Amino acid sequence: MSPAQRIDFVAGFVGDVWTGGRVEACDEYLAAHYTIHHDPGDPWDGQVLDAAAFKERVRQSRAPFPDQSFDIRHALAGPDSVAIGWFWSATHAGDLDGFPATGRVLRMSGATVYSIDTGNRICGHWQVADRLGIFQQLQRR
Amino acid sequence: MSPAQRIDFVAGFVGDVWTGGRVEACDEYLAAHYTIHHDPGDPWDGQVLDAAAFKERVRQSRAPFPDQSFDIRHALAGPDSVAIGWFWSATHAGDLDGFPATGRVLRMSGATVYSIDTGNRICGHWQVADRLGIFQQLQRR
Repeated sequence: MSPAQRIDFVAGFVGDVWTGGRVEACDEYLAAHYTIHHDPGDPWDGQVLDAAAFKERVRQSRAPFPDQSFDIRHALAGPDSVAIGWFWSATHAGDLDGFPATGRVLRMSGATVYSIDTGNRICGHWQVADRLGIFQQLQRR
Repeated sequence: MSPAQRIDFVAGFVGDVWTGGRVEACDEYLAAHYTIHHDPGDPWDGQVLDAAAFKERVRQSRAPFPDQSFDIRHALAGPDSVAIGWFWSATHAGDLDGFPATGRVLRMSGATVYSIDTGNRICGHWQVADRLGIFQQLQRR
């Protein structure tokens, strides 16, 4: 894949799976094993996930935020990776780490570096997000 | 500059100015006006800074963390930008938002997308960092 194709591929994955909630679409994008190299606050941080475990991670992560949406603002391709900077928004519709649903629209920004293997499959990521922003929005009265 | 040269240039800026504290080195790297497009928690978020204002931002930001160090783990070049994913560490040696110096070594991760202008100068950034991680380290007893 060209750099532009790698970016489109990652944008497709984020759109289909994380925004759209089409969990089965993981099969079109992911390698057999997916490594979460760094993702503070993610319950699966540091783990290597097979397809079933990754899909379960998507389901559990999206459960409080069924209408969540990622807006990719920056996308850069390296030889075997793609970095994206994104804005996220979602209605807080379910329990999140002990915070019951508020019905509020929450917003957050973050950045992810996806690793692409030689078979053109996404095989892991390194991610940071502004988790403090979310907690400030949840604690507001 | 080639993509590799753009990455080296940004790494030089981060090393000289943000890790090394060589504030005057800004003159070798920055455009006349520097835009902070997105940087939640940064007091200068959303502002356009001239050279003097940028140097003052570096001085004030580094004041609580005189030995701070950035370790770049990922670097990708786009046509007019460079994205880096980084780990930061520093001894908490001065007041930070009302938290008096603890002497602790704090650690944080983040990602920055630097904009590069047609004159090969850095003219702005978009950044996220795991601020929650820092607050958790400061609040630990």
